[in-house]
Amino acid sequence: MTTQDAHARAENATDTAAAGKALGSHKGYLQGPRPDIRVPVRRVHLTNGKDVTLYDTSGPYTDPAIDTDVRRGLAPLRENWIVQRGDTEEYAGRELRPEDDGIKHTSPRGGLRNLDAVFPGRPRQPRRGRNGASVTQLAYAKRGEITPEMEFVALRENLSAEFVRDEIAAGRAVLPANVNHPETEPMIIGKNFLVKVNANIGNSAVTSSIEEEVEKMTWATRWGADTVMDLSTGRNIHTTREWVLRNSPVPIGTVPLYQALEKVDGKAEELSWEVYKDTVIEQCEQGVDYMTVHAGVLLRYVPLTARRKTGIVSRGGSIMAAWCLAHHKESFLYEHFSELCEILRTYDVTFSLGDGLRPGSIADANDAAQMAELDTLGELNRIAKAHDVQTMIEGPGHVPMHKIKENVDRQQEVCEEAPFYTLGPLTTDIAPAYDHITSGIGAAMIGWWGTAMLCYVTPKEHLGLPDKDDVKTGVITYKIAAHAADLAKGHPGAQLWDDALSDARFEFRWEDQFNLALDPETARAFHDETLPAEPAKTAHFCSMCGPKFCSMKISQEIREQHGATMEEVEAGMAEKSREFAAAGNRVYLPLAD
Amino acid sequence: MTTQDAHARAENATDTAAAGKALGSHKGYLQGPRPDIRVPVRRVHLTNGKDVTLYDTSGPYTDPAIDTDVRRGLAPLRENWIVQRGDTEEYAGRELRPEDDGIKHTSPRGGLRNLDAVFPGRPRQPRRGRNGASVTQLAYAKRGEITPEMEFVALRENLSAEFVRDEIAAGRAVLPANVNHPETEPMIIGKNFLVKVNANIGNSAVTSSIEEEVEKMTWATRWGADTVMDLSTGRNIHTTREWVLRNSPVPIGTVPLYQALEKVDGKAEELSWEVYKDTVIEQCEQGVDYMTVHAGVLLRYVPLTARRKTGIVSRGGSIMAAWCLAHHKESFLYEHFSELCEILRTYDVTFSLGDGLRPGSIADANDAAQMAELDTLGELNRIAKAHDVQTMIEGPGHVPMHKIKENVDRQQEVCEEAPFYTLGPLTTDIAPAYDHITSGIGAAMIGWWGTAMLCYVTPKEHLGLPDKDDVKTGVITYKIAAHAADLAKGHPGAQLWDDALSDARFEFRWEDQFNLALDPETARAFHDETLPAEPAKTAHFCSMCGPKFCSMKISQEIREQHGATMEEVEAGMAEKSREFAAAGNRVYLPLAD
Repeated sequence: MTTQDAHARAENATDTAAAGKALGSHKGYLQGPRPDIRVPVRRVHLTNGKDVTLYDTSGPYTDPAIDTDVRRGLAPLRENWIVQRGDTEEYAGRELRPEDDGIKHTSPRGGLRNLDAVFPGRPRQPRRGRNGASVTQLAYAKRGEITPEMEFVALRENLSAEFVRDEIAAGRAVLPANVNHPETEPMIIGKNFLVKVNANIGNSAVTSSIEEEVEKMTWATRWGADTVMDLSTGRNIHTTREWVLRNSPVPIGTVPLYQALEKVDGKAEELSWEVYKDTVIEQCEQGVDYMTVHAGVLLRYVPLTARRKTGIVSRGGSIMAAWCLAHHKESFLYEHFSELCEILRTYDVTFSLGDGLRPGSIADANDAAQMAELDTLGELNRIAKAHDVQTMIEGPGHVPMHKIKENVDRQQEVCEEAPFYTLGPLTTDIAPAYDHITSGIGAAMIGWWGTAMLCYVTPKEHLGLPDKDDVKTGVITYKIAAHAADLAKGHPGAQLWDDALSDARFEFRWEDQFNLALDPETARAFHDETLPAEPAKTAHFCSMCGPKFCSMKISQEIREQHGATMEEVEAGMAEKSREFAAAGNRVYLPLAD
Repeated sequence: MTTQDAHARAENATDTAAAGKALGSHKGYLQGPRPDIRVPVRRVHLTNGKDVTLYDTSGPYTDPAIDTDVRRGLAPLRENWIVQRGDTEEYAGRELRPEDDGIKHTSPRGGLRNLDAVFPGRPRQPRRGRNGASVTQLAYAKRGEITPEMEFVALRENLSAEFVRDEIAAGRAVLPANVNHPETEPMIIGKNFLVKVNANIGNSAVTSSIEEEVEKMTWATRWGADTVMDLSTGRNIHTTREWVLRNSPVPIGTVPLYQALEKVDGKAEELSWEVYKDTVIEQCEQGVDYMTVHAGVLLRYVPLTARRKTGIVSRGGSIMAAWCLAHHKESFLYEHFSELCEILRTYDVTFSLGDGLRPGSIADANDAAQMAELDTLGELNRIAKAHDVQTMIEGPGHVPMHKIKENVDRQQEVCEEAPFYTLGPLTTDIAPAYDHITSGIGAAMIGWWGTAMLCYVTPKEHLGLPDKDDVKTGVITYKIAAHAADLAKGHPGAQLWDDALSDARFEFRWEDQFNLALDPETARAFHDETLPAEPAKTAHFCSMCGPKFCSMKISQEIREQHGATMEEVEAGMAEKSREFAAAGNRVYLPLAD
């Protein structure tokens, strides 16, 4: 976000040198109402002496004054705020077990576990609400309390803290911040705030390592991911998550069902409330900020998918459907939903109610199964809110453009404006390898119409696991969609970023144009491919058109040469224009032939 | 396009082997009502024995039965149709001059001209309407004549020839087909047809060669470009265009003003109607199918751009604005518009009325300058139609999402539903190097709302000239936008393509999924990165999730194992559902606590 207020506040801010060099910017901080509220920003110093201040998700890694070490983890920014509230307690916590990492006591491969992989940072005990107390931002907001977290996001979004509190209290926004993830820099998800972007990472049985996942997380946040979901399904699932959490400046989401299924050897029918609950507590204690729960997949909805083109494409949805059919019983997630709420509220874990029956193809969009589940998510949202648990609602999927608005309108109505968190949607099925684009189109539109957070899709969607390049492409594509949505919603200040870049473009300030770009490196590289010399970066023409044909140059010359004249012409033309209108707005006479 | 009728017609069709191998398809032809009407299609043979027939723009190059040679040019497919109409004549034509290729008699560099570059194909004389006759598809359509060209596009679009004729007669569609470009395979541009995509190529003073441009043209059409604009501005402008035209299976567009400006050494004020007219005739004789003419940039509109953030960003627009101000006279294009119509109609060159005042930034979108010019384009459209000249209208540019619909609605109203041909629009300015995506979003939306052809934007927009990779990325991105728009418009048959791909996905027919993709090569390569082995391509799980977590697999198993049960459950559930509704649609009881 670029805001005028942010500019004004910049005077109070600390500014540090170049770590964000690759991003063409410098780390800065906006000072909040108390000394320990310092909101990070990207500050782009322009060659014309002006500054542009942008929203920053990259965490302490881009601050050269901070010495980060992934083996130690990030500093616990929020710890004092949590402790000072005095409503939580540390406790021994659930004992870790080999199966948390997918290792069976009886497995001959148990010994293969790489103990070096265990997170080596400071020892910690988990924390929870004292005597089962609600320690959620929602509970505080309802009571009229403005927390430091709310102050932080208010400054970050350039809105008042009271507005932030009000939106959270109404359930229109969530501030995901588990008391066991004090490293997170507070951020808010709601339709009256900037549209956010989530990046998925996670290893699978097939590929990738813990190190890669931690690197993907920092990489994704560097390019602008507001939250990260760790969707690991293979081995070392607990340990990978520990590394990711301790090093993440953004909220981390998970799907606990994936780990629960690992604990029962991948047999959906062997899942139980007990195994699931145990896994949820394990993850609450680790610090997961929001959890996808597919509690809306009810037994009676499964047959609605029978005639679909692509059945059930959500992993969680298909697991729960299989469980329901195998037992001929209602989903244990649904049956135990209140109990689940009572757990989550003692850690301030936010629900992300999963759309297990989302469409997986254009043909299945907005069908009966999807809409039936959405109604149930609306019901669960009300229950969660009553329990003080922050809640957002997940959305599709694959939806052609003309059916997108119906989707978000229905969700907003059924779920009382709870934040909508959508995957894309993909607007066509025909372009595997380009689904960041098929879905970026849908994401921009659904963001405009009210989605609060967009779950990215990478070029590897449907084909493989994303590597670092794919993560970057996915994040940048979704930052574009989110910003386009902010512009279309008329979010205050959003257009200042576009304006700053367009000014730089018109004035041939190439370096500024690069540094203001979402991806300065690539913009610079593309320019240099055609005109590599340094002087070309101050040249008054583009490499596209060459010096003779540059429209911007001609346009500038017109302005310079006819500067005075322009005013005169403008005045003179006003008179001509009136005559013209009086003559019926037709300059060119009707044809005789 | 995938159409059921196309399938039926396939029985009459010739099918040839693999040249389109890289595209995962085989060349086929749909046989029209006369032997020389054979519409090319891409036919994807699926592993389940079915065939999917797709629209094909790749020309004879993908037909292994045809021996193509860029030095000879393509066969003149339409020549007999043109000759048989008996309303045209061959004539000596304008004499070629060195300055047509940017070479001055007096220039010491004249000798540098590479004579080998002159197109070596069959000698030809230009053709034109006898005695100034209108030989346009619009003239024929108005007279109720259905031409072979109309029959061709009817078969190509799976619509009746009478419908095609009617849309052209009403000015709602254009069929760009210069009598001097008989090599082109007829195609149609109009909102009631499939949304089309244009790819720009062209060398500049700074970079690139004739060979590269010809290769970019064939490359662009291979990936789906429906037309190509040659925007060359450097040397060899005439010769480059000759090579491109003689080898192009799609209509070629140009901006004659660029070449005219070269003839007056880049000095806008030295332009004149005479130089311009000479250039237009030169290009009409060569076979250019449509020409961008910035006749709507009027003297009195120029001051409207004075307070803009990015002035005039259209090259043609800025050249004409400079001319108008320099002479303090009305645009010679506007003043001589009727005369221009009389030239174009004798070759059947289609107008693409340029939006010289289109916005170049979010800040300038839908402003007074843009709207004033649009009104004038509406006026010129009526004049062109009255002269039997086919006409489309160019559109922006940079427009935030919430202002896009207003744009297309206004164009449709002011221009009597003449085909809208838009550049993007870009929905934000902040992502140079990703403007194929910022604009792909806007393109999909404006396509849905009525744009007939989308001018692609490549990742190099604003930064440099596109290379082959950029051309491919731009075309694929815009094919996605166009197809998403076809789906949203409910174009008959459009969804069959998505359905075929989704079926393949659900049934783990990986090879079919790749071959049905817009870009089979990349889809296959991405999949192979994670799971390279051949058996993985028939594996019943994705590389993303691995065997245990595959939702599609679980979903299929549910269907198999509970096949009979599903029907019973469905019946039983219907009863339960009624009970549920009777109880107030609430399964979960209101909270007590």
